[in-house]
Amino acid sequence: MTLINEHYTEVNDTYLFSEISKRVSAFAAANPDKKIIRLGIGDVTLPLPTSVIKAMQAAVEEMADPATFKGYGPEQGYDFLRDAISADYKSRDIKIESNEIFVSDGAKSDIGNIGDIFSTDNIVLVTDPVYPVYVDTNIMAGRTIRYVGSNAKNSFLPSPPDFHADMIYLCSPNNPTGSVMSREQLKEWVDYALKNEAVILFDAAYEAYISDPELPRSIYEIEGAKKCAIEFCSFSKTAGFTGTRCAYTIVPKILNGRTKPGGHLPLNRLWNRRQTTKFNGVPYLIQKGAAAIYTEEGKREVRDMIGYYMGNAAIITKALSKAGITFYGGVNAPYIWLKCPSGLSSWQFFDKLLNEVNVVGTPGAGFGKNGEGYFRLTAFASRENTVEACDRISGLINI
Amino acid sequence: MTLINEHYTEVNDTYLFSEISKRVSAFAAANPDKKIIRLGIGDVTLPLPTSVIKAMQAAVEEMADPATFKGYGPEQGYDFLRDAISADYKSRDIKIESNEIFVSDGAKSDIGNIGDIFSTDNIVLVTDPVYPVYVDTNIMAGRTIRYVGSNAKNSFLPSPPDFHADMIYLCSPNNPTGSVMSREQLKEWVDYALKNEAVILFDAAYEAYISDPELPRSIYEIEGAKKCAIEFCSFSKTAGFTGTRCAYTIVPKILNGRTKPGGHLPLNRLWNRRQTTKFNGVPYLIQKGAAAIYTEEGKREVRDMIGYYMGNAAIITKALSKAGITFYGGVNAPYIWLKCPSGLSSWQFFDKLLNEVNVVGTPGAGFGKNGEGYFRLTAFASRENTVEACDRISGLINI
Repeated sequence: MTLINEHYTEVNDTYLFSEISKRVSAFAAANPDKKIIRLGIGDVTLPLPTSVIKAMQAAVEEMADPATFKGYGPEQGYDFLRDAISADYKSRDIKIESNEIFVSDGAKSDIGNIGDIFSTDNIVLVTDPVYPVYVDTNIMAGRTIRYVGSNAKNSFLPSPPDFHADMIYLCSPNNPTGSVMSREQLKEWVDYALKNEAVILFDAAYEAYISDPELPRSIYEIEGAKKCAIEFCSFSKTAGFTGTRCAYTIVPKILNGRTKPGGHLPLNRLWNRRQTTKFNGVPYLIQKGAAAIYTEEGKREVRDMIGYYMGNAAIITKALSKAGITFYGGVNAPYIWLKCPSGLSSWQFFDKLLNEVNVVGTPGAGFGKNGEGYFRLTAFASRENTVEACDRISGLINI
Repeated sequence: MTLINEHYTEVNDTYLFSEISKRVSAFAAANPDKKIIRLGIGDVTLPLPTSVIKAMQAAVEEMADPATFKGYGPEQGYDFLRDAISADYKSRDIKIESNEIFVSDGAKSDIGNIGDIFSTDNIVLVTDPVYPVYVDTNIMAGRTIRYVGSNAKNSFLPSPPDFHADMIYLCSPNNPTGSVMSREQLKEWVDYALKNEAVILFDAAYEAYISDPELPRSIYEIEGAKKCAIEFCSFSKTAGFTGTRCAYTIVPKILNGRTKPGGHLPLNRLWNRRQTTKFNGVPYLIQKGAAAIYTEEGKREVRDMIGYYMGNAAIITKALSKAGITFYGGVNAPYIWLKCPSGLSSWQFFDKLLNEVNVVGTPGAGFGKNGEGYFRLTAFASRENTVEACDRISGLINI
């Protein structure tokens, strides 16, 4: 009698983006003539940088020749990519060794799988609103989750709570609120983690969108963070890899977890064991593409790409300001988090936007209790569509 | 105080292939002039088929153009690939619907991650010798593992035991023994699983090496299997994808697991929930490459590739026969499982081969208790190296 993991019965079956997709499909089927513009799911639209394309073309050629063909690679990633990432941290005065870097197929995978190395007895802390993966993966594992409210009162940048937690998920620039932690704010959390002997799971998937040098792009800019934090980074939003799949996770070698008898074990060793046992690395040709991002040409292209999306963000925030709508984010972050006008609920505003002006966004309520009454727009559409969507939204709101 | 998953302290830290790699590196460093031939780790050597290369080249081009660029794809895989896989099963008179197919980055990942959806209270059954991933992933999850001996007495094709189990790992063609189950033998296991309401986790990573039409390539050729089996397939050995990473897993919709209160839940739904929450799909361009395997050109190339490796297997088995060495496998399977001559232990024979004739194989003892005194060779080297390795081994043994 094969028993299932009972905790799977505890997760909500309706995943936010499936529900959005269902409503949009129904609308599109009923209104085939309408042009729907999507500022909802955070997917990119610009093609891959030329340097990445060139590197992948060359790598495909290598796979066609027995002399250069590549079979199994290291589960942790090729040295050429790990070294490039390490050098990039070094250029920002952060010392991360190559063997503290684990290349993977996505931050979502790593954020989901990292739970493997931790006890299910740990208390999890998330801020609400929250990226649903932090919550769902921990419900599936049977962990207790405690919430810290992220709301207008704290400008969606909550401080650590007065209760204890063992595993803390933080995301900055934040998905969904677009808020970005200052060094002082992040230090508060690092201090809290050190005091509680907790681990911070720091989701830095949007770090490349930070242009203000005063804001931390890596948690390791904060003193003591290597003793308490794992950092998740991704090429998805940095270089348009959402459909190309490459990311990396930093597990510092001095970061320990506690064993039941009271000893310490390096989490780097545990994560290495997890990845070598349940993963076989990222395709060689994808890693070659990712490495190209660190060339001079690649860096320039990535800057341009991010500049383009942040130009979209500026267009959105300008339109919202003009319409008198309260919002957060859109600066140093590709997400714009707005307060639904006229006291509408998140899903009411979703339906209104979809039905009346055919623009798709993401209802804040889908991210948690504190998201109710809020709505997320993203800067990842094309310029043309962003401008048109803003015109439509402005027209709707000013009526 | 972040507790680790205590079960990680229970897994052996020395993974078989790391130990091999360590000994080979040490030998190579001490003997830089020696040409080492590797018939050990099961990695392929032929380049990717031309049809796959062409499809990936075209897909890379698509990623360079905003009109054809692909962002996030479906977590379960693109329809073009799932439909091609479904059609392939149909051509073998097996009805597998596209939504029973989950495309992933590797059979190792899926075999490792599938445990997520099952209770840790389930009793696991593996045959010994065994692919270490079945064992290690279950130790990490804290499950009890029971072993069924696979040995010379049962020609490395054990029958089901008289005790109960809930999750049964089977691999045919077998890694490491190269043994292949007949329909009758596989039916015994399906009947056992149905009787015990157990789930068979059927690792079919080497199914493409079966040329005898009397032998089952899929467990779904056996009546009742859809009610008790998940099948794992991979393009790694089928089409040289070890470094390109693409595989698929079949979870039939009529396959249920049991909830604690005694209800049933479809495992397809649970696995879908797992994959949509902790995975973001395989790179578009890799899936395009994999789909090319199902074109006429691709099928022909795959047949040629497998023919080449099976030619190697024939050379190895002929040499072993001539030297009077007992072996299993090498027919309908890319692995050759030999009894170490002169009563040597697995690691003694490993060291002897490495030091005296510079050939690397895999010590059977690394796969479990019953592997002691046995040794695995693979058919995946180049023809030239296979011939040379066989000459060297023959010379060694005949002395």
